[in-house]
This record gives sequence, structure tokens and C-alpha cells, in this order.
Amino acid sequence: MDQPAPVLRPRDRLLGAVDLVATMVFALEGALAGIVAGLDVLGVVVLGAVTATGGGIIRDLLIGDIPPASIRRPRYVASAVAAGVVAIALQALVDDIPSWLLTGLDAAGLSLFAVAGTVKALDFELSAGMAAVMGTITGVGGGSLRDVLLGRVPAVLRVDVYATAALLGATVVVLTVRRWPPRWLMMTIGAAVCFTVRIAAVAADWDLPVPGD
Amino acid sequence: MDQPAPVLRPRDRLLGAVDLVATMVFALEGALAGIVAGLDVLGVVVLGAVTATGGGIIRDLLIGDIPPASIRRPRYVASAVAAGVVAIALQALVDDIPSWLLTGLDAAGLSLFAVAGTVKALDFELSAGMAAVMGTITGVGGGSLRDVLLGRVPAVLRVDVYATAALLGATVVVLTVRRWPPRWLMMTIGAAVCFTVRIAAVAADWDLPVPGD
Amino acid sequence: MDQPAPVLRPRDRLLGAVDLVATMVFALEGALAGIVAGLDVLGVVVLGAVTATGGGIIRDLLIGDIPPASIRRPRYVASAVAAGVVAIALQALVDDIPSWLLTGLDAAGLSLFAVAGTVKALDFELSAGMAAVMGTITGVGGGSLRDVLLGRVPAVLRVDVYATAALLGATVVVLTVRRWPPRWLMMTIGAAVCFTVRIAAVAADWDLPVPGD
Repeated sequence: MDQPAPVLRPRDRLLGAVDLVATMVFALEGALAGIVAGLDVLGVVVLGAVTATGGGIIRDLLIGDIPPASIRRPRYVASAVAAGVVAIALQALVDDIPSWLLTGLDAAGLSLFAVAGTVKALDFELSAGMAAVMGTITGVGGGSLRDVLLGRVPAVLRVDVYATAALLGATVVVLTVRRWPPRWLMMTIGAAVCFTVRIAAVAADWDLPVPGD
Repeated sequence: MDQPAPVLRPRDRLLGAVDLVATMVFALEGALAGIVAGLDVLGVVVLGAVTATGGGIIRDLLIGDIPPASIRRPRYVASAVAAGVVAIALQALVDDIPSWLLTGLDAAGLSLFAVAGTVKALDFELSAGMAAVMGTITGVGGGSLRDVLLGRVPAVLRVDVYATAALLGATVVVLTVRRWPPRWLMMTIGAAVCFTVRIAAVAADWDLPVPGD
Repeated sequence: MDQPAPVLRPRDRLLGAVDLVATMVFALEGALAGIVAGLDVLGVVVLGAVTATGGGIIRDLLIGDIPPASIRRPRYVASAVAAGVVAIALQALVDDIPSWLLTGLDAAGLSLFAVAGTVKALDFELSAGMAAVMGTITGVGGGSLRDVLLGRVPAVLRVDVYATAALLGATVVVLTVRRWPPRWLMMTIGAAVCFTVRIAAVAADWDLPVPGD
């Protein structure tokens, strides 16, 4: 549409690779969730693709990278569809999809998207605080769309320590990424923090306080 | 906001006309669905307008035609409101709204939006595959918003051969429209394919396989 | 992204102030609604922030002010989070949150956002009719997102005289604001009309007709 501003549309290979891996992980998780919900094959693939690309699309619309990366480049939707097909094949091979697999994939996708979203928002010159918020939205956005489409209250509102984990990982990135290069190291640390907190919360059944209880 | 890029904002009369007819058809269908759901007059008109303009607005945000055509030009919202009023008048005249009317209108809107959305996405230089995806989103977007607002799982996930029909119509357009002009002919064929597949699926009760069944 | 067009991105102090007050009012209301729904502290704050910023973000995406004001400037999210914390503190002090407080705050947020959204849409050169529609969307958007996230049919569809009140206030602004300056006076009158109609509708239990009843 406009002349692209090269500085603000970085073709950062690392960022693109992380986004792509997170897309496949979330697509697999979303498609498996669709199978559990009893959708037909197309519904399963569509739900996987929405879960996988939703967070990044919301982020890109909000930071002004339009058309969003997932629309501009076919590789994201193609990977998401491929992951959906893998999920369907997996289901045919395995009798029961273990819940720890869904939880682990979801935590991995959450962590990768949270740090990738934060770094992209910083590249688009958002302030540090808003970049952490955008990273969190990138992480929780796709799953929230999935839950709304399935008629559920999104995990971000129901589940204790979900957005919290994403926000912690994003905060680590915001505080460190410009001070201590290389970038990939701080992204890895941020993702590890998010993943660890999320898995620990599930394992130890951590609860946030409920007002009025 | 920016200097508009004239090549990329085509005031294609055919595209505009198809979009407008599809808007009216979907508004009528959405408003009738609102009447069936027991909404009051304003809710009926709002639901009709959301159903009618939602798919095109999502498409325009994603391809970067901002403000979306339905916001930039009052004719879309005006037509949607008029169709909503027609739906209310129709309800007063007819006792029961036959379900084949809802199904037929929905299939017509789906077909028109799918081909119009595909062509517009091609005009905005999306790749062939993503243009077909955008056409499908244009077709199913408004109805999905309607279903989410009414607290239902969207038809695109529940109903067999719904998005499939839109994707087939969009694929026909993508494969033919640049090779064999005139454009209106290929759009007509694409819309006919989508409409026929959708109606045949309803009539013959086609099912897609459900993984794990 | 693009060179900002200064005329179209007015740093209107009045508009910014009204948006900020409405953000806090809606965040308080959304957070209290989250407490009533039994969410944990983070869910309460997130729901408050979504309720508060959702309408403005939808408006800004649709009129092309991207990134939306709530993303560009941290003050909106910061205010929303602060209001969420106030709501949690309030809950600890007061046993029951009276329903008139929720209704009053909601009506106030609706009125302020409806007039602010209308004026901003006019500044972005939308037509009078579409500016009134955008003002209404700004007013009802955040609450609609809140309702969808909580798995409810949005108030705009269920509740009589809700969007109607916003549309009336927006129409007052559209008809007067360019003819009779100063702007703040016509915005005040528009907001007062919206607030009065909304509160009167609740108090007197006004109903819109339901087609077919």
C-alpha cells in the first residue's frame, strides 16, 4: 500500500524463524484441541490455523505491520495447514491424545510468540511497557480466538498464571534485549522463563488470588 | 492517512456491485437469524449489519485497504440497515420464515463474497493461495461474527462443507481470472461452483470425516 | 510506519482527556464485572483493560489511526490497569457491589466514548452518518468484547436502548459540532443526551419492540 519503511519491516531471520516454529506448534495444539472437540477435518485444520496465526495477526494489526506477516507470506498458513494434517494423522495412530502433550505444546507456543511479539513491537518503536503488552497479546491472542470460537471463556481469563507467564517472559526480553546483545540469547532466556513458569504453574497447581474469596 | 495508491484501490464497478449485493443478501439473512433468536428491532438491524459487513471489513483490514470500504462509503451500512428493515417487514407478513430461505440467502452471500474477496485480494497483490484464503475469510467472516455474537460455535467449524464451498469457488477464480478474461465471467463461474456445492451439501447431507470416529 | 499526516492525527487535548476518563470509567466497570464473574486478579485486570480499550482500538483500526492511540501511548493501558487495581481494592472494602454503580459507570463510559469516537471519526473525514456509526461502535465495542470473552451475548444485542442511546448522543454531536462551536459544549450535550436516555431506559424499563411478538 505505502512505500514500505525498510527499518520498520525488518526481515529478521531469527524473528521469522521463531514465528514460524511457534506457528507450527500452536497449529498442532489448536488442531488437536479441535479433534478433542469433535470437529470434522476441515474444522480441525481451520481451528489450528486460527490458533496459530491469530496472535500474530492481532499484533501486526495493532503495531501497524499491514498486511500482517501471516497474510503477506503464504508460509505461515501453509505450515499451519501442514501441522493440522499432522495432528489428524497423529490422532489416527494414537488412541488418546495425552493432556500433557497439549499443555506442553501450548506452553511452547506461548513462550515463543511472547518473545517474538515483544521484539517485533520494539522494532516498531513501541515503548518498553507496551512492547511487553504486545508480546503477551501475541502469545495469548491465538488461543483466545480458539476458545471464543469453541464457545469457551478464554484461558487468559480462566486459567491462573497463563498471561502472567507470557508477561514475565516478555518483561525479561524488554529489560535485556537492547542492553545485552545478542538478541537470540535474551529471547531464549525470556522464552525459557515463560515456559518454566507456565509448566511449573500447571504442575504445582498455582493459583492467583480471587478477589472476594 | 497516506497518499492513496490508485492502482491498489481500484474503484472496480463490478467488484463494488457484487460486494453491495452480497452485503444486502447477508444483511437480510443475518437480520432473519436475529428475528429467529428473539432480538428486538435494533438488535436485528445491528446483527444484520454485522453479518453483512463483517467479512469485508476483516478482509480489508488484513489486506491493508484501510479504512475498509464499508466504513469509507456509507452505502454498505445503509443497504444493510435497509435489508434489516425489509427482514422485519417480511416477518410481519409471513408467519414462519422457511429454513430453505435462510440457507439459500446464506449460500448466495457466501458465494458472492468469496469471489469478490478473492479478486480484491489479487488486486492487492496477495499470492494466489493467500487470495483464495482471503476470499474464503470474506465469505465466512460475517457469519462467524454473527454466530460468536449469538454465543454459537461458528458455522465454519460446525457445518460440513461450508468453508469448503467458499474455498472451491475462490480457487476457481484464482486459477482462471487472470488467464481468461473477462473477469465477470470467471467470477460468475466461481460463485456458481460455490453456490452449487453448498446447496448440494445441504440437500444431500454431505459430511466431512471426523478424525477419530 | 508512514509519515504521519498531522491534520489527520490531531493531538486534541479535549478528545484525549475524554478518551482517558472514559477508559478509566470502563476499566473500573469491566474489572467489577470480572470480580462478579469470579475471575482471579489478573483476569479482572485484563477484562477491565479489554473493556476499556476495546472500543477505541476497534474505532482506530477502522478509521485508519494505526497503531491505535491505546497502543501508541502507554497512558491508556496504565490507567486501565490502575482502575482495575482500584476495583479490586473497592471489592475488599465493600461487601456487595451495587448494580446501580455498574449501570451508572457503564452509562458514563458509553456516553463519553460515543461522543469522543464521533468527533475523532469526523476528524478523520468520515461522512456524518458513518461518524455517528463509529461513535456508537466506540461506545459499545469494549463492552461487547467483554461480553464475548465472558461467553455472553453482547449487551448491544440483548439490552434494549443501549446502542440506541449511544447512537442518539453521536447523532447530536454530528448534527451540531461543526455548526456551533465550541466543540466541548456540543460533546457535553451529546454525552448528556446519551447518559440520560440510557439511565431513563434502565429506570423506566423501556423496551424496544421484538419482531413477531
